Amino acid sequence: VAIVGVGLIGGSVGQALRAKQLAKEVVGIGRSTAKLDEAVALGAIDRGSTSLEQGLQDADIVVVCTPVDRVAADIIAAARATGPNTLITDAGSTKQSIVEACEADDVAIAKFVAAHPIAGSERSGAAHARADLYEGRVCILTPTAQTPIAFLERAKAFWSSIGARIIEIDPATHDRHLARTSHLPHALAAALAAIVTPAMVPLAGGAYRDMSRVAGADGSLWVKIFLENRGAVIQALSDYNQTLRSFESALVAGDAELLRNWWESARVNRLAYDLQNGLGSVPSGGSGE
Amino acid sequence: VAIVGVGLIGGSVGQALRAKQLAKEVVGIGRSTAKLDEAVALGAIDRGSTSLEQGLQDADIVVVCTPVDRVAADIIAAARATGPNTLITDAGSTKQSIVEACEADDVAIAKFVAAHPIAGSERSGAAHARADLYEGRVCILTPTAQTPIAFLERAKAFWSSIGARIIEIDPATHDRHLARTSHLPHALAAALAAIVTPAMVPLAGGAYRDMSRVAGADGSLWVKIFLENRGAVIQALSDYNQTLRSFESALVAGDAELLRNWWESARVNRLAYDLQNGLGSVPSGGSGE
Repeated sequence: VAIVGVGLIGGSVGQALRAKQLAKEVVGIGRSTAKLDEAVALGAIDRGSTSLEQGLQDADIVVVCTPVDRVAADIIAAARATGPNTLITDAGSTKQSIVEACEADDVAIAKFVAAHPIAGSERSGAAHARADLYEGRVCILTPTAQTPIAFLERAKAFWSSIGARIIEIDPATHDRHLARTSHLPHALAAALAAIVTPAMVPLAGGAYRDMSRVAGADGSLWVKIFLENRGAVIQALSDYNQTLRSFESALVAGDAELLRNWWESARVNRLAYDLQNGLGSVPSGGSGE
Repeated sequence: VAIVGVGLIGGSVGQALRAKQLAKEVVGIGRSTAKLDEAVALGAIDRGSTSLEQGLQDADIVVVCTPVDRVAADIIAAARATGPNTLITDAGSTKQSIVEACEADDVAIAKFVAAHPIAGSERSGAAHARADLYEGRVCILTPTAQTPIAFLERAKAFWSSIGARIIEIDPATHDRHLARTSHLPHALAAALAAIVTPAMVPLAGGAYRDMSRVAGADGSLWVKIFLENRGAVIQALSDYNQTLRSFESALVAGDAELLRNWWESARVNRLAYDLQNGLGSVPSGGSGE
């Protein structure tokens, strides 16, 4: 197995493969020899290479884990550097633009299966990689009518082998839903962090801590994701703003019943999350802080 | 010590006092005999009473832990039911309206010290109380020029004795800052939950999980807090909206540099939180999810 981009995401794939002894050899491909050496020392890969062509020789599976603005180009390059039986999959947070770019390339389309494992951290780098990062987490696959079934089955088996639960949806739905469940929320975390100055921080409790956590993430990665999924993020923000305007007008009017109804209609969605994730129902909620 | 309102907050005060053997007796005052019996069974109080007058007899300290719209009236009633040496403190999430109401009452003002321990959970009820809920957490005291120094010192000693770190600020600053660090964030969590339907929930990762957690809280409690601190919450929302508009216009323009600058100016605030809370600096942030 070859991993292109050995950071938190790629490094965790490597650690999982090595911990479970699923691959004869795990090769990391990156631009920095120092980072590849570190990844070897951390047990994320068996060896590193700064050359795509050399690193991908003999690879049965290539996992592209570079930032979203580089994923499509790296998939296409990997497709050209490997034989017809090499499965190529990725871990990009957006899917439609990546899938479109790859489907425009005859070589890539014949062996690429788009994937997005829903796992990570606000930390980055192989130093924060974990062999169990994908254990029990969802990995979304976004095959299209053009995706070869045999490769789709291999991609399912691959992501399952490192612990992920597979969900299949189409790329556009992926991007529309992820704009709401992940991309926009990162911007909202940053917007909240922006209005809480360091002087107020000693007064912040659990709500602020959890809601602003991902604002500590790497901005350059997130700016790329926002731009790759711009349309869906703008639409999600428009709906979010509409929801907030309902809250604001009920608050300005001092209308307790409107506010309660507004809260309850949101709360049922959160309770659905709790139920689906085995957190149990919360028959009587508390103060939240 | 008497505790008026034995839910998560009051029950945790009682459990801490009993675990540390700080009080001769902990008496709970509430409206429901069944809930008081449950609080006794859970070890939160020694005995319960549905009568304020009877429950407060011989109390050295009264802690009012009822919902914010009832706190001021309960403090004033407790002040009238106790002698001149009884300290009365509270745990209300808003402070200015409570302090104003109590300062308009000659009996209450002579022995009341306003407090807000920054601790809690999205769960409620004595069943979720914990003896260590206040351990290492901040308790904000909001004394004014009218607060008797001797009672202020006793309030500091009381909240410190159950593990809290004391911060003193004035009631208006408390409400302005808490609107940003706690009250508005609860509404933002609900607004996010509102746009993520149950069908999208399987695609939600850590960012959604943490950012919507408090949307599971009891709406009736939060509606009261929003209304009690309406002006500051509306102002905080206005600043938040302005921040989001900057994000939106940079995104619509596709301006990566503006987006990166926007993200970084928010991120430094979050890193200040990490530093102050011993979470260490995060030299290179990750993907966030």
